[in-house]
Amino acid sequence: MRIARVSVPGVEFPVYGVITGDKIELITGLPWPDISDPVAALNLADVKILAPVIPSKVVCVGKNYADHAKEMGGEVPSEPVIFIKPNTTVIGEGDYIVLPPQSVNVHHEAELAIVIGALAKNVEVDRADEVIFGYTCANDVTARDLQNSDGQWTRSKSFDTFCPLGPWIETDLDPQDLAISCSVNGELRQNGNTNDLVRSAREMVSWISHMMTLLPGDVILTGTPAGVSQIVNGDSVTVTIADIGTLTNPVIVR
Amino acid sequence: MRIARVSVPGVEFPVYGVITGDKIELITGLPWPDISDPVAALNLADVKILAPVIPSKVVCVGKNYADHAKEMGGEVPSEPVIFIKPNTTVIGEGDYIVLPPQSVNVHHEAELAIVIGALAKNVEVDRADEVIFGYTCANDVTARDLQNSDGQWTRSKSFDTFCPLGPWIETDLDPQDLAISCSVNGELRQNGNTNDLVRSAREMVSWISHMMTLLPGDVILTGTPAGVSQIVNGDSVTVTIADIGTLTNPVIVR
Repeated sequence: MRIARVSVPGVEFPVYGVITGDKIELITGLPWPDISDPVAALNLADVKILAPVIPSKVVCVGKNYADHAKEMGGEVPSEPVIFIKPNTTVIGEGDYIVLPPQSVNVHHEAELAIVIGALAKNVEVDRADEVIFGYTCANDVTARDLQNSDGQWTRSKSFDTFCPLGPWIETDLDPQDLAISCSVNGELRQNGNTNDLVRSAREMVSWISHMMTLLPGDVILTGTPAGVSQIVNGDSVTVTIADIGTLTNPVIVR
Repeated sequence: MRIARVSVPGVEFPVYGVITGDKIELITGLPWPDISDPVAALNLADVKILAPVIPSKVVCVGKNYADHAKEMGGEVPSEPVIFIKPNTTVIGEGDYIVLPPQSVNVHHEAELAIVIGALAKNVEVDRADEVIFGYTCANDVTARDLQNSDGQWTRSKSFDTFCPLGPWIETDLDPQDLAISCSVNGELRQNGNTNDLVRSAREMVSWISHMMTLLPGDVILTGTPAGVSQIVNGDSVTVTIADIGTLTNPVIVR
C-alpha cells in the first residue's frame, strides 16, 4: 500500500490515508500496527501531502555505498558508522530546503529511508521485516564544509529543513535492487542502486536495534550513492526511487 | 522551584509536581509555559521519581571543559562540537545503566543539563533565559572504546539507558559557579565547576538555536569536566551538582 500523511482543508490535524491512483482514502489514527477502515475518500489533488512521519529519531548510516565512500576520500568502514538527525530537520514533498548562513557548501544526498512500524529491540536480520512498516525517499542534506571542519558530522546534518522525506510510504516493497537517483534542476547528479548498499536495509535495522530501541515512526536513512554535489538558492532537488516515487524540494537561502 | 516528574500509585500516566521539602504538590499537564495550581499534595516518599523529561532530542556539547579535552588527548575546538543522544537513552533517578555487550569500556560523564521550556529559534545569548526552563543533573554515559574506534561519537553515546537525567529540574538557578562532581561507589572521580565551561550554558542555547529549533522539554548537555573513568557491573554512580541535587544510578551488565 501507498500511505501518505496529509493536510485536509477544514481538518485541524494531519491525517493518514491510503493512495490508489489519484484518490486517497483517509483512515483514523496512525497506520500502524493496523490500518483502520477508510472513513472518507478524496481526490489526491485536494489534499496537501506532508512529511510521511515525524519520527522520534532519524538514524543515518554513513558511507554505506562504496562509490560514495571513495568520493569522500575514504573507504567503507569495518563497522557501520551512524549519526542522528533531529526530527526538527524533517520536511515533506514540496517544502523548502533552507540554506543556513553558517555554511557556503550544502549538498544533496539521495537515500532510501526505512520507516519503522513497531517497537524494535534486538531484532535479528531475518525478522527485520516484522518491524519495518515501509520505505520512502529521503534527502540527507549536509553542510559539507561544516562536516569537514567539525570532524563530528552532527552539526552539518542537523539544520532545520535538512531532512526531506516522502512523498509517501510504500509498504509492499523489496528494498533490494531499487534504482535511486538525484537530479538538480532536471540534471542527473546521483544514479545508484540499492543493490550496492554495503549493509542492506534489513541488516541496518537489526544492527541499530541491538544498540537502541526503535519506536514506531522512527526513520533509518540507509546511505547515499556517489554523485553528491552542491545545491544553491533557487535550485529544485528531486530524489527518485523506483517503485516509491519522487521527492522534490526547492532550495532557498535564509 | 523544584519540579519533578513522578509516578503516583493508581495514576495511569506520569504527572509533574512541585517539591517543597519532603512534600510534592501535583499539577496538571506540563510545567511549561505556566504551572497550574496544585491539585493534590503527597509525601515525596509515596511517589516514584522519573526522568524529569522525555525530550524530543538531547543535544550534547563535546570538549567544553579544557581539562577534559586535555585528558581526551585534544584541545578545546575552535567552534563547539555537538552530537545528539536519542530519547531512548533517557532514564531517571535510581534506574539501571545497562552495559551493552558491544563495549568493554563504558565511562561516566557528569554534566549540567539544560531543560528548554519554550520553542526556541535564533535566540540571542542575552535572551537565552527566556527559553530555559531550568537545570538538572545528567550522566552522558559513553562507550569509550566505540567512541575511539568509530571516530563518529553517536553510537558510543546512544545505547539505551545511556542518559540518566534528574532527579528534578531546578528553575531558579544561576548556571554559573556550580560545583559538579561524579563519584563511583562513593569514591570521587570528577570534581569540577561550571565556571570552567568554555562556552556557558546560555551561549550554547543560543548557538544551538541558530542551527536547529529547540522544543519545550528538549535537553542540552553542556559537557563534562576531567576525571571520566570506567564503570562496571555492580557499580553505583552519583552525579552531584550544587543547588540541584544528586542523581544516582546502579550499573548492571546485560
